[in-house]
Amino acid sequence: MAPNHGLLLYEGKAKRIFDSDKKGQVLVEFKNDTTAFNALKKSSLKGKGILNCQISSHLFELLEAQGVDTHYLGLVSDSWMAAKRVEIIPLEVVVRNIAFGSLCKETPITEGTELSSPLLDLYFKDDSLSDPLLTEARLELLGILSNNQRNEIETLVRKVNLILSTFFEKLDLILVDFKLEIGINAEGRLIVADEISPDTCRIWDARADSSSDRILDKDRFRKDLGGVVEAYAEILKRIQEISPNPRIYK
Amino acid sequence: MAPNHGLLLYEGKAKRIFDSDKKGQVLVEFKNDTTAFNALKKSSLKGKGILNCQISSHLFELLEAQGVDTHYLGLVSDSWMAAKRVEIIPLEVVVRNIAFGSLCKETPITEGTELSSPLLDLYFKDDSLSDPLLTEARLELLGILSNNQRNEIETLVRKVNLILSTFFEKLDLILVDFKLEIGINAEGRLIVADEISPDTCRIWDARADSSSDRILDKDRFRKDLGGVVEAYAEILKRIQEISPNPRIYK
Repeated sequence: MAPNHGLLLYEGKAKRIFDSDKKGQVLVEFKNDTTAFNALKKSSLKGKGILNCQISSHLFELLEAQGVDTHYLGLVSDSWMAAKRVEIIPLEVVVRNIAFGSLCKETPITEGTELSSPLLDLYFKDDSLSDPLLTEARLELLGILSNNQRNEIETLVRKVNLILSTFFEKLDLILVDFKLEIGINAEGRLIVADEISPDTCRIWDARADSSSDRILDKDRFRKDLGGVVEAYAEILKRIQEISPNPRIYK
Repeated sequence: MAPNHGLLLYEGKAKRIFDSDKKGQVLVEFKNDTTAFNALKKSSLKGKGILNCQISSHLFELLEAQGVDTHYLGLVSDSWMAAKRVEIIPLEVVVRNIAFGSLCKETPITEGTELSSPLLDLYFKDDSLSDPLLTEARLELLGILSNNQRNEIETLVRKVNLILSTFFEKLDLILVDFKLEIGINAEGRLIVADEISPDTCRIWDARADSSSDRILDKDRFRKDLGGVVEAYAEILKRIQEISPNPRIYK
């Protein structure tokens, strides 16, 4: 059920952001809408919004407990969370532990190759340009980040990767790669924003036998493997086994 | 006319490389074949091979005179040159002075924008992957270059850019961007290889009035502007006005 909320501030492909009556805060609604390939492929998957909202809440609380600043404040209802209002940096910050997806189309590295060190890829968040990869020189040219911020982001997301990978390992889950969006708060501090869910992470099941069975993330939708919501639910189930319920924000 | 040559060692889209009877040397034939968009568009343009061979020879001699090592040894006939045998690094090293082409499809920078500092882009030379852009992290991951070699290449190509831009400016020509291929010789030294021609450079005519008239490079072919060979001939004519004939190699 939708909580009381203010005006719609922004509608993305999988979320809506609303104004809140609390200063400096927003309300985030997780939608069932699912898109892939820059929205060329679209669907609505019943239950996905709730699952991603719950999984994200768990993971934001995990990060917070380990000293990582996030925009998350708490759950408001099944598929809504309260979050701090931040200015989003127009980058998709991707960390890869195992080569998969676009990396294997853009380099001769074979799918499934474990990377000796996690690879950081920065993409310019712009649908009209299909989110192009940015080199450090292009990043500098576009003036999106200062050199200091670039290094700060690298340190931050490598820490997030370590926390998430270690946590997932305990659940027999493998964190293949993930995308973060980073916000800047009013004090200029970098903050993990957006969501952390099977829509934005590649997560494999270490208990699975086959390479298609192991996929528990949006690749099930991209590759028409079916069982998308069931896979997301499996991730939440394993998280709930070792993790307390996310807090309710009032 | 083809000189005496050994076996065909390599055939590229615009050149053939043959073995030479001299140790450590090859013979390079410049073809009339012209391709664009990863060879999706093809043609043969009479006279192009000779023009590119002559322009390249002039520019290699210019670089050599300013202390830049190149693979060039001298002209053998109109469309053939002798060159040192080198191992080519599988990179397309692109330097951009003015934003044009793929940069403007992959960033919000408008065509024609003068860049405050020349931009260096490294692409992985692999037709099957459509020559993808490499970040520094991906370059390191692929193990193509050591960090030292990466920095050495940057210094080298920035020097080449300065020499070529200054030279073209004297001819009322604007060097928009260009691609170099770099070889490594038997002693591990980095050497400018391949060709430097209107096939591999964007060159604009500072004397032209309109934005399509000013194009004197392969964009005339890419954009179906016609007059490709005439444009290349105009570049050679201006070079010949201030530059001695390239040496004949025996």
